[in-house]
Amino acid sequence: MRQADSDQLETINADLVEVTRLVGSAMNRATQALLDADLQLAEAVIDFDAKVDILTASIEERCFELVALKTSTGADLRSILGSMKMSSSLERMGDLAEHVAKQARMRHPKVAVPQEVRGTFAEMGGLAEAIVNKTGSVIATKDVSMCADIARHDEDMDRLHRELFTIVLSPSWKYGVEEAIDVTLLSRFYERYADHAVSVSKRVVTIVTGEPYVAVSLVN
Amino acid sequence: MRQADSDQLETINADLVEVTRLVGSAMNRATQALLDADLQLAEAVIDFDAKVDILTASIEERCFELVALKTSTGADLRSILGSMKMSSSLERMGDLAEHVAKQARMRHPKVAVPQEVRGTFAEMGGLAEAIVNKTGSVIATKDVSMCADIARHDEDMDRLHRELFTIVLSPSWKYGVEEAIDVTLLSRFYERYADHAVSVSKRVVTIVTGEPYVAVSLVN
Repeated sequence: MRQADSDQLETINADLVEVTRLVGSAMNRATQALLDADLQLAEAVIDFDAKVDILTASIEERCFELVALKTSTGADLRSILGSMKMSSSLERMGDLAEHVAKQARMRHPKVAVPQEVRGTFAEMGGLAEAIVNKTGSVIATKDVSMCADIARHDEDMDRLHRELFTIVLSPSWKYGVEEAIDVTLLSRFYERYADHAVSVSKRVVTIVTGEPYVAVSLVN
Repeated sequence: MRQADSDQLETINADLVEVTRLVGSAMNRATQALLDADLQLAEAVIDFDAKVDILTASIEERCFELVALKTSTGADLRSILGSMKMSSSLERMGDLAEHVAKQARMRHPKVAVPQEVRGTFAEMGGLAEAIVNKTGSVIATKDVSMCADIARHDEDMDRLHRELFTIVLSPSWKYGVEEAIDVTLLSRFYERYADHAVSVSKRVVTIVTGEPYVAVSLVN
């Protein structure tokens, strides 16, 4: 690989890290907009997603151009193709943050989640932040030892997702169908967000180790 | 591109068409399992997804190898990289069919959807079948004129998805929270299935026209 191409690949990698920062910030603010029924913040998150879309489209385009140069082999080529995949997953994480913000906007001035499950959503927001931060670090450093943490956060997210089902389906659920649906969909958005972060981390593992994606497990 | 590589690319394309057939059949049978509370059929759909995962992983692997040969340029290279993206979307469509089947299995021997919305789900199943069939044809023939139909089916799917929200949230909804959640999640699985089919069709357009993905609109 020529120096110019190697520099370009480094820029692409730095931009992927930047996208994790953007979609992390988006989900963070979406959670806050949700918990505070903050319409202005929700609108800001919704508008912000265009920025993620533009950057991920540009990453994909630059990956394509880099492949077309035919100067990359082995790990470099895996890195370029892996970056295209990561970019798609990160773009989707941005969409999911936007979905949370849209739900907050739809129910404004009401808070879209009942008091009883506020804490769980705050916790999901915290997990989303932790998982996307670590995903950014894994992309930046290629230190895949952090992937076990990411897998653990994902398991915690799945547990909270299941807990919310138990809560809305329990006989003591004192809210209506609308609230139950809001909780279910929102919970799924967080759960899918974490899944995509796991998928991105697995891509980094494939780049570092050369293992095929399907064979990668983040848990030792 | 050498003849052998061109043949390989054709095989990859044929395999993508085969995956549309597999995930089409999976969603078809999942819908039937859902509407008939057919446990055996639901189990069959769930087991079947491994087949989709294996074929899509193999497509991805072969695309990688083809890129690594560095014999492809222009439209051929777009076709290979586009195939990798299509493979991911199709794999996800298989997961969504599996999700429907799992929901059917979870509620067995009860039918997971109340009588009142059975017709809507049957219609969603029909749309899913139509959209995946057309997606397969677009991949096979590269005749992107069919994409307008795909976009229209997707709009119909979105409309049914919204209708179901209206139904479960109406004061006349005589079922409980559990049924409402089942309907909401199932409806989202069909809606996402159609979204992925749209995404696959858009990829074919990028291959045929060279337009960037974000700029592609399926509606004239």
